[in-house]
Order: sequence, then C-alpha cells, then structure tokens
Amino acid sequence: MTAPLTPSEPANSAAMPTIRMMPKANARAVRHGAPWVYTNELVVDRRTKNLAPGTIARLEDAERQPLGVVAVNPLSKIIARMLDQDADAVIDQTWIEKRIARALDLRNRAYDAPFYRLIHAEADGLPGVVIDRFGDTCVVQPNAAWAEVMIEPLCAALQSVTGVTNVLKNAGGRTRTLEGLDDISSVLAGQAPDAPLPVPMNGAIYMADLMAGQKTGLFYDQRPNHAFAAGLSKGARVLDVFAHVGGFSLAALAAGAESALAVDGSAPALELATQGADAMDMADRFATRQGDAFDTLAALRNEGAQFDVVICDPPAFAPSRNALEAGLRAYERIARLAAPLVAENGILGLCSCSHAADLGQFRTASSRGIGRAGRRGILLHTGFAGPDHPQLPQLAESGYLKSLFFRL
Amino acid sequence: MTAPLTPSEPANSAAMPTIRMMPKANARAVRHGAPWVYTNELVVDRRTKNLAPGTIARLEDAERQPLGVVAVNPLSKIIARMLDQDADAVIDQTWIEKRIARALDLRNRAYDAPFYRLIHAEADGLPGVVIDRFGDTCVVQPNAAWAEVMIEPLCAALQSVTGVTNVLKNAGGRTRTLEGLDDISSVLAGQAPDAPLPVPMNGAIYMADLMAGQKTGLFYDQRPNHAFAAGLSKGARVLDVFAHVGGFSLAALAAGAESALAVDGSAPALELATQGADAMDMADRFATRQGDAFDTLAALRNEGAQFDVVICDPPAFAPSRNALEAGLRAYERIARLAAPLVAENGILGLCSCSHAADLGQFRTASSRGIGRAGRRGILLHTGFAGPDHPQLPQLAESGYLKSLFFRL
Repeated sequence: MTAPLTPSEPANSAAMPTIRMMPKANARAVRHGAPWVYTNELVVDRRTKNLAPGTIARLEDAERQPLGVVAVNPLSKIIARMLDQDADAVIDQTWIEKRIARALDLRNRAYDAPFYRLIHAEADGLPGVVIDRFGDTCVVQPNAAWAEVMIEPLCAALQSVTGVTNVLKNAGGRTRTLEGLDDISSVLAGQAPDAPLPVPMNGAIYMADLMAGQKTGLFYDQRPNHAFAAGLSKGARVLDVFAHVGGFSLAALAAGAESALAVDGSAPALELATQGADAMDMADRFATRQGDAFDTLAALRNEGAQFDVVICDPPAFAPSRNALEAGLRAYERIARLAAPLVAENGILGLCSCSHAADLGQFRTASSRGIGRAGRRGILLHTGFAGPDHPQLPQLAESGYLKSLFFRL
Repeated sequence: MTAPLTPSEPANSAAMPTIRMMPKANARAVRHGAPWVYTNELVVDRRTKNLAPGTIARLEDAERQPLGVVAVNPLSKIIARMLDQDADAVIDQTWIEKRIARALDLRNRAYDAPFYRLIHAEADGLPGVVIDRFGDTCVVQPNAAWAEVMIEPLCAALQSVTGVTNVLKNAGGRTRTLEGLDDISSVLAGQAPDAPLPVPMNGAIYMADLMAGQKTGLFYDQRPNHAFAAGLSKGARVLDVFAHVGGFSLAALAAGAESALAVDGSAPALELATQGADAMDMADRFATRQGDAFDTLAALRNEGAQFDVVICDPPAFAPSRNALEAGLRAYERIARLAAPLVAENGILGLCSCSHAADLGQFRTASSRGIGRAGRRGILLHTGFAGPDHPQLPQLAESGYLKSLFFRL
C-alpha cells in the first residue's frame, strides 16, 4: 500500500468529514445519478485537500443540503465518487455485501455458470471497483482509493456473498496511477491458482492465467460478440487477429468451424489459446501464428490466404482524444488489410475498445478501409459488451466496446 | 397494377434510356455505394420525366461517365435506385437470381430453419424489395416501381433459388404510395395458406397470419432482442406490452418464464399469440389483456401488479422528423408508466422502431421516464435488428430498430 493511505478501519463515524460543491457546480446532476464530482466542482479548502485518499465523506450542495456519502481522493481529478445518495449510509462490510448481492442477482439471471464480471464499477454501485469471477476464484481490481483503503471488508463481503474461496488483487489497472495507487498485486484470501483456470464460455473452454495475464487474464466483455461470430462460423475457415487467448477462434470452433487460425503478438497468450483448443479436443482444427498483426495480415495476403470469417479485435488504438485521429487511421488500416482475406460472401468482424472513438466514427473508418481494399460491405450487426458490463445511462455514450460485423 | 406501369418485359435492351446527374450532384457518393439519386441531383428533362415508373436506365455523371444501371421512377423523390454499378448489367431473372442466391447464402449461415427476412431491400441488392420467408411460403413487398414492373421474373427467380411453393404479394407497405403504387395484395404463385402458419423462433412458436396480419404477419427484426430478454426470463413473471402475436412473451415462456402477460390493442393479434402458446403447450402460463397500452399500464399499476421482466415494443411514435418531439415524449411516458410495474432488481426493456429518434435521444427519453417514476436504471444491453436485416453502412445511422434493456 502507498504511504498516504490510512489503514482499514470503520469507514463512517460521527466525525465523518463534510465536503461541499461549488455554487456553480451541477448538484442537480448528482441528485439525478451523476456518479462523479470533479475537482473544479468542489470547494477544495485546505482541510479537504488534506483528506487521506479514500476518505468517506458527506457531500453537500452549495446550500449545504445533503447529496449523499462519497469517497474522496484529493489526488484524483475525480475528487469524489458517489457511494450512496442516503447521506446517513454507513459504508461498511454490510453495505458492500448489499451491493455485491444485487450485482450477483443480475449475473445469476443472465448466466448458467459462475464465470462473469461480477462488479462493473459505478454501474454496480461500487465506484472504481472491478471484480471478475472465475468459479471459485475472484480477481478484484480496486481502481479507486476508497476500495484500496477498504480492501479487507471488500474481500470479506465478496466471500460472504458469493462463497468464493480465492480472492486475488490485481493492481495492474492503468487508472490506479490517476488515484495515486501502487501496482502491487497480491493474494487477499485463499490462494492463487497454480495453473491456468479453464473457463467455459459460449461452448468453448478458455484458459485464464489469473496471475500473469493481461488485466485479469480473460476478457468477459466480448462474450456476446464471440457468440454472434460463432453463429456464422459453422463449417467456416476462421481467422482471429489479436486473438489473445483465442476469444473468437475457440468459440467458432465450438460452433463447428472447419478451422481457426489465431494471430497474436504474445506467445504466452497463444500458448493459452492452444491449451484451450486442447481442452476442447479440437486442437487438430486450430493453429496459431505469433507476430505483429499488421505484418501478419499483409503476409497472409501475400500467401493468398482466404477465410470465411475474419475477426480483428485490436487493443485500443484511440484510448484518448489526443489519439483519436491516429487511432481512426489504424482502424481503417486494419479493415483495409483484413478485407482482402475475406472470401466472397464472407464475414468481417471489426472491434474497437477505444473510449475516444464513437460508434459512428468507428463505422466510418471501418467502411472506408473496406472500400479502400476494393470491397463492399453490408452491416449485419453492431454489438457491445454483455450484461455483466452494465453502464450508467449517464455514461453510456462512452461505452467503450463496439463490434461491427460486415458481410463482404 | 396502376395505370402508368408498363407490362413485364425484358428490362434492358439496346434502347435502354440514359439519365444524367447534375454537375453539382455527388456522383462520387454513388460510385462509393450510395444507393439513391434524388430528383434534385438529376437532370430531369421532359424525356426523363416521361419515363414509365420502374424503367431500367443507364446512369451517367455530369461528364457522361457511366455510373451503373438504375431503376427510375419520376413519380418518386428517389428518382433513381442503383441496381448494378456495372453499366452493362442486364436486369433480368438471372440477375435477380444471383442477388437472391447471395442473400440466401447469408441466411443459411445465420439460421438453422428457413424462417427469416430473405431480402432486406437495398442492402441485399434489390432496392425497395422486401421478402420474408416462412418455410415454403414467401411474402414479397415490392415497394419500388421497378419491382412492380418486374414482379413476374422476381417471383420466378425467388422460386427457382429457394424452391418455395407459395409466393404472396403484400402491397400494404406505406412507401408504395410514394412510388405511385397501388395497395392490392395478391397470390403470385402457389396458394395462400388457409390458416395461420406456425413459425419457430428462439424456441417459441409464433402463429403468422400472412394474409391478414400487420405488414407480413410477423416481425423477424426483433429476434435477437427477444432472445436477449428470454435469457433473463427464467422463472420470471413477464409483461409484454404491445405484444402483437406474442414476440417477447412466447420467447420468455420458451426460456422458462413462470408466467407471461401479453397486452395489445388488437384482439386478432392476441388470439394468434394464444394459439402460439397453445402450440407450445404453455397456455397455462400465458394470459392476454386487450386494450390501450397506456391505459393498461396505468390500470396494472393501480392493481399493484409487479413483474420481473417488463418489455414495451410500441409502434413508431416518431416515424418522421415532424413527429420527433411528440414521439420522444411518448417514449418517456411509456418508460414512466412501465417502470413502476418492474419489481426490485427487475428488467425493463424498451424498444423504438422510429427512424427519426436516434439511439441517444431514445436512451435519454427512456432514462428520463424511469427517473420520473422515481426509479434508477443501469443499462444492460443495446440491441438492434438481426443479421437478416442488413444495412448499407451509408444508411446505418437510420437503423430504425433499437432496444434498451435496463435493470431497475
């Protein structure tokens, strides 16, 4: 834990500090559900500035009317995150349990097996907290200071509500830096799995390396898009570019694809993909190719390779507004390089996980790339993340994950 | 057939007329796939004005460079619809067969059974033509003059490619008026079914009355949204408002809903829904209530009714820009009336098939209505029409069908 954090303790008390919004700030938006207060919306006096990151405080509007209980972090531009609009709420293990139970209820409705994103931060009522569940093991990303301070009751609540044995802390989230938090991962309860865990999804088996993988070792967000692509992949030759642990390719194999080729820059990720294909007993229809995606797309074209279904799921090319133009050019380039590999009447799936590129911009870049390759596409499907990645309606415009499926 | 239409005959000939775009018109867009030419983009001399609706012509840019073969209708604001960018294309039964075969290939990939929209107009290369398939029967909506002129080769091509026995013509499409076409439906081949046809979809059975129903008697466009809602409906009490023939309710029953109540203004539609529930042997879990949807929502509230899943799939409240504001108010009102019927942690699904209301506007109206009911929702899913309703990327902004699923 970094120096400025106080040790875990009962979070509210009679002495809970109070912070106040500026007269010109939009307190009404907060009343209507806006989850964040920015530094320039708050009266930041010396006392507020000196609050320890993660302090639980009462938020008032400029007229001193209560708005609720928030978590404060003077180190972050998001200086306060709404925890509860009830200004008398006590933020303790019991409170966290109620939030987790509510989130679990939704996942139980949506999924047959306990493999999903259990907590998706603000929309699930635990700001800055991401929890992915892999059966008996959960991986917690406390990406806001309050969750770091309250990591013990958070872990206890998680175990008590879900009954999981193992709780791992993943401190690799990029936003932790913005909160002044360290990047030291650890085991919070039980033990770390000593081998990749098999994760069933869309009929496939994925191997998730929870300690070494990117983020939490597996991305649940693409599940519905994997399913859509798989639904068009029966008997198909499938190319999965930026495949990671085989998201699209293994789902396609499970749905009856004739063959699947997974391309990724990471040899360990492809090794996990191969282990997944092995576990599905479909290794004979699965191949991998390690290398730069752009280079590999060009090389496959030179080889005259053709596929019935081609999916490109790159990392965020436009993670911020500054990177938008370059990012859109990169998306266009991906489409231009991938389209020639799609057989006549085949399917091209293009994904973006860039916050900065909105759906219209991404669609335009993708269409343009297809056109530059001398092809014409019709749009079959626009997909987003699954229901275990809920969004606050106020933040829905920034829904980062988009997938477009074209028939060429 | 209306007076100005010429009888069916070989469409192209050496004498195929030529029409020309204005110097300022965007010929480049047409080259890049824009499907329509408006009256103000075309040189409309007396000869062009006198072309019979549905005439096949060659389109040139202002410099007399060929752009392709189009269907002309001087009665319509869309005076020319691109048929083929190959200026030498011959528009005959063989040409239509190729288009239908290509569309069929996509549906064969996507669906296990022959129940789908087979031709979705421009995106499937047959401008203005909609064809829905119900097993051995197809319903054709020739909503552009050229298709009316060529209805015989169109019907023959359809039978030759798909092997269907019965082809019905539905002339009820609203856009036919804009093309100067009549509203007389007929049987083009085989015979009209003498009873509603059972249509399997998402595990449910829907009864489609192809001669008497709205549009073609069944809407395929909501299939993926039915599936999404059904996936959250196991063990749930489901309310399906604007139910038509039971789209959401029967899919929910098939997925294990405890009960489903279908509300609609149309008694014949609800009778078909009940027949569907009977055919599924689930009539004991199914009920209907005929009446105005707004009134019924209010009445259910007064009765203290609660449901785990509530879906509202109203007709287009904002079919045109003029109707936008009133339409958005109607969507807000639907959300406000429906939200109180949703049990704690329940699901509210809201749909819009309004071209004029875009996704952001519809989401805002829906969120506001939920808020006005004193509830808070998180957004689980945004859905559109299925892949048997492909879109030209150029027209994708106008994708009319949107569904939003909230957890309250």
